[in-house]
Amino acid sequence: MAAAEALRAWRSLLGDERVLDDAATLHRYAASTSSCSTRPLAVLRPRSTPEVQELVRIAAAHGTPLYPISTGRNWGYGDACAPSDGQVIVDLGGMNRILEASAELAYVVIEPGVTQGQLSAYLREHGLPMWMDSTGAGPDTSLMGNILERGFGHSPYGNRFANVAGMRIVLASGEVLDTGFGHFPGAVNQRVFPYGIGPYLDGLFTQSSFGIVTSLGLWLMPKTEALNHFLCGVAEHEDIAPVVDALRPLRMDGTLRSILHIGNDMRVISGGAVYPRDKAGGALPLPQALRREMRAAAGIGAWTVSGALYGSKAQVAAARAALRKALRPTRASLRFLDEGKLDLAGRVGKLLGNTTAGRKLRANVQLGRSLFEMNRGVPNGRFLAGAYWRRRAGLPPDFPEHANPAQDNCGMLWVSPILPMRGDDLLRLHRLAEPIFHKHGFDLFVTFSMINERALGGVLTVAYDKEDAEEVERARACYSELFEAIMQAGYIPYRVGLQSMARLDRGGDSYWQTVARLKAALDPQGLIAPGRYDGRGIKA
Amino acid sequence: MAAAEALRAWRSLLGDERVLDDAATLHRYAASTSSCSTRPLAVLRPRSTPEVQELVRIAAAHGTPLYPISTGRNWGYGDACAPSDGQVIVDLGGMNRILEASAELAYVVIEPGVTQGQLSAYLREHGLPMWMDSTGAGPDTSLMGNILERGFGHSPYGNRFANVAGMRIVLASGEVLDTGFGHFPGAVNQRVFPYGIGPYLDGLFTQSSFGIVTSLGLWLMPKTEALNHFLCGVAEHEDIAPVVDALRPLRMDGTLRSILHIGNDMRVISGGAVYPRDKAGGALPLPQALRREMRAAAGIGAWTVSGALYGSKAQVAAARAALRKALRPTRASLRFLDEGKLDLAGRVGKLLGNTTAGRKLRANVQLGRSLFEMNRGVPNGRFLAGAYWRRRAGLPPDFPEHANPAQDNCGMLWVSPILPMRGDDLLRLHRLAEPIFHKHGFDLFVTFSMINERALGGVLTVAYDKEDAEEVERARACYSELFEAIMQAGYIPYRVGLQSMARLDRGGDSYWQTVARLKAALDPQGLIAPGRYDGRGIKA
Repeated sequence: MAAAEALRAWRSLLGDERVLDDAATLHRYAASTSSCSTRPLAVLRPRSTPEVQELVRIAAAHGTPLYPISTGRNWGYGDACAPSDGQVIVDLGGMNRILEASAELAYVVIEPGVTQGQLSAYLREHGLPMWMDSTGAGPDTSLMGNILERGFGHSPYGNRFANVAGMRIVLASGEVLDTGFGHFPGAVNQRVFPYGIGPYLDGLFTQSSFGIVTSLGLWLMPKTEALNHFLCGVAEHEDIAPVVDALRPLRMDGTLRSILHIGNDMRVISGGAVYPRDKAGGALPLPQALRREMRAAAGIGAWTVSGALYGSKAQVAAARAALRKALRPTRASLRFLDEGKLDLAGRVGKLLGNTTAGRKLRANVQLGRSLFEMNRGVPNGRFLAGAYWRRRAGLPPDFPEHANPAQDNCGMLWVSPILPMRGDDLLRLHRLAEPIFHKHGFDLFVTFSMINERALGGVLTVAYDKEDAEEVERARACYSELFEAIMQAGYIPYRVGLQSMARLDRGGDSYWQTVARLKAALDPQGLIAPGRYDGRGIKA
Repeated sequence: MAAAEALRAWRSLLGDERVLDDAATLHRYAASTSSCSTRPLAVLRPRSTPEVQELVRIAAAHGTPLYPISTGRNWGYGDACAPSDGQVIVDLGGMNRILEASAELAYVVIEPGVTQGQLSAYLREHGLPMWMDSTGAGPDTSLMGNILERGFGHSPYGNRFANVAGMRIVLASGEVLDTGFGHFPGAVNQRVFPYGIGPYLDGLFTQSSFGIVTSLGLWLMPKTEALNHFLCGVAEHEDIAPVVDALRPLRMDGTLRSILHIGNDMRVISGGAVYPRDKAGGALPLPQALRREMRAAAGIGAWTVSGALYGSKAQVAAARAALRKALRPTRASLRFLDEGKLDLAGRVGKLLGNTTAGRKLRANVQLGRSLFEMNRGVPNGRFLAGAYWRRRAGLPPDFPEHANPAQDNCGMLWVSPILPMRGDDLLRLHRLAEPIFHKHGFDLFVTFSMINERALGGVLTVAYDKEDAEEVERARACYSELFEAIMQAGYIPYRVGLQSMARLDRGGDSYWQTVARLKAALDPQGLIAPGRYDGRGIKA
């Protein structure tokens, strides 16, 4: 059998300990927050680009499809799972070297296994005056995995793909392709200019199945003299629309260079609590009165905007003034956090001891510190709490240390429509989504992120109880209805989970036909990640 | 004969007046500032995407290669010329509609023929509060043509390709491909998020031969409250290095959001004069003493840095302070221009009347105004003056109105290495280039532009007299030696002229092999712009 022969060849290449097909391993890699996980045939763990080249050649010889993952923490979108059963996972987590770091030109070159926590620690330990852009997915997630999915973080470098300069890719032929200027012998400009000369290919290798990226150059943000975090809130739902419209010009003119996040009450509430099953009397979704109560307890309104200002002290002061002025005509409250304020609040919180006010203040200080640290590229798992909202067992005792929603059997599906950055579009999408969530018994968690100067990236979370088969069914139905609703409304998502890959080609679409042609040119056997953003989708 | 049949079919599609193959037309399209122009077989002038689709199908049926141009003003890099003789030029200049304009989301959708002057006027006439990014190539050049060559301008939107959202492309099959979200029926987010979902393809259609782009979304910069231009100069050559190193952190931290240009003395001198043949007694290059004299007359030193600050008044003030502080340890002078100062100087200039001081001040005011206007997206041909440096007839009487160096028979070749943004690299490249220019009897004109936060884009001009056959030969030799020198030193260029297309593949290069594979997948007959950045090059 081809697979057995391939396994033999891989074992002779990598050794038994790096070719795994025991049941426990396969079970672990199949773990998913999603409702449709798949099971790999085996797991390979290469440690170098030449090993990846060799294992790809073996796959080609035997026609066995490969599914590369970095750390496999693509939570909410399919985790480590391939689009279909029986693909061989190439776990690149063992390739976790930081190959180069330049403080002068502010970049690093990383392998797929380099995690947020690792790079953040590396910069600190080596005293490099740069901040990593961090997502909310915690310290154990791969930077490259997220970048290749075109994920986004929080800082001015949050549009992560826009900060990539030079990729090394193993193609399905086993050849190595260096993009940008990297393929010119002796090039000294590879990491400072992404495009190179000739067709700019990097985009081809994001959200795709065209190759296995084994390293890339990543620009980092030099530390700034000053950093302020700000929180801005509105009490009532509709009041968020004018706030979006007031912030858009500041995002466009560079006053707000970081990726602002606009979260609804549930998004904040779920950060500190799980679904209060008893208090709600099992009612689904959360009763409106209880939601209001929790909102009040958290000291928030319907929406909270969170962002950061970077620059010299004078620049941050100018930005603060511009922000205050822009928000004046709206109903938004505005608070600035700096380190001095956090320290002071921390001391007061201690003084207040074990009182309600003391506990609340300390919790707020802790949240503030986490936000502050994340803006400086120190990742924190606490922003994953939403995934645990309906989990029967609640948050694990060691949360947020190394939170892993997939291994913790959380139920979570993400839907990520892109909207024009306008208050009206936010409200329209919300009006579309809320009844679907409620109809299926779910609470709508939503964040809208100002991922560039013109677009909001929505992330709607269907958080569900994976131990309740009926709820799993409802989650699937809710997701499906929601997905079709955003496609109908023209709010096409920027990223999808496995369950939607096959639903992206709406028929006779020349884009997907072009993708299929390019795929055939680079990977005629369909060896790498078949079904992943290739317009063909998975088996039904 | 296939070509004759194709011409007949095109004539029946477009009418006789839009299919041209008379000698005068072919001669006009063959005009080039370069030393190696090519002659087209014919020129087609479609007016719509469906016409482009149809003419591509005709080309496919008859196997006649097409060379699409926007306005054909790719000066210094080959102008309107195809990589080889006998290609059929598809002149898209007649497709010059501005299809959409949104002030709210700050973008336009343009066709290939839309020129800098046209868009600039459109914004002004419609009272749209946005600034176009302008290059120095004057009002008659195509925006799209420059974008697809990955050219750069001056403003914070100067990295032009990074501001494209959604392309419409006619493929060699005659099919239309909409990139980004544009291929989803009813998408409302096509112009606010370039990547779409799935592989991001736009990069494929820049510096390439993979398709004919017939429209694209272009983000524009919203007007800011304040705008300051600054000029910063150093007297001696070596003093520019610490200035680059002092400015780099400001470019990285967003204080300097625009593309700064660092020009040598010759670059500035050539803006107001042509080679003083008589005074130099025919000596080539310009004698050092005369160069010093012209430098003094222009009131400049060895290097001049030119850039702009954008934002609210407070932000611009903060940026000015940061700039002053950063430059303090260097030997640079620093001057700020705002509109008030220019008005005042203009009035003083008038008062001084026809004196030397009066003339000099008025010339400086005019230059200041042109720089200022360019920062606001009003293009000006005067920055093309360098092309006329060695032209026997000097500047045309109507210069800079509609300057056209190719039709004016200027000799100009551009070499555009990319450097890490470091003073040392600038000096190293200069040390490499200057002897080559002087050896061949040319003056080194050079600009280094801070095209992103980490790279300098050098533009070295070989300006030569096209009426002097011996000088043409020397220009060719100078270019060739220079090109090899930068490749050897690892300062790979971001863009090349026709004469270097074939020299980009240094042999056995997997990047160019990949490009060839992709080309074969999208254009198996090699119909579109064969030889253009495809690793195959032109016939020798």
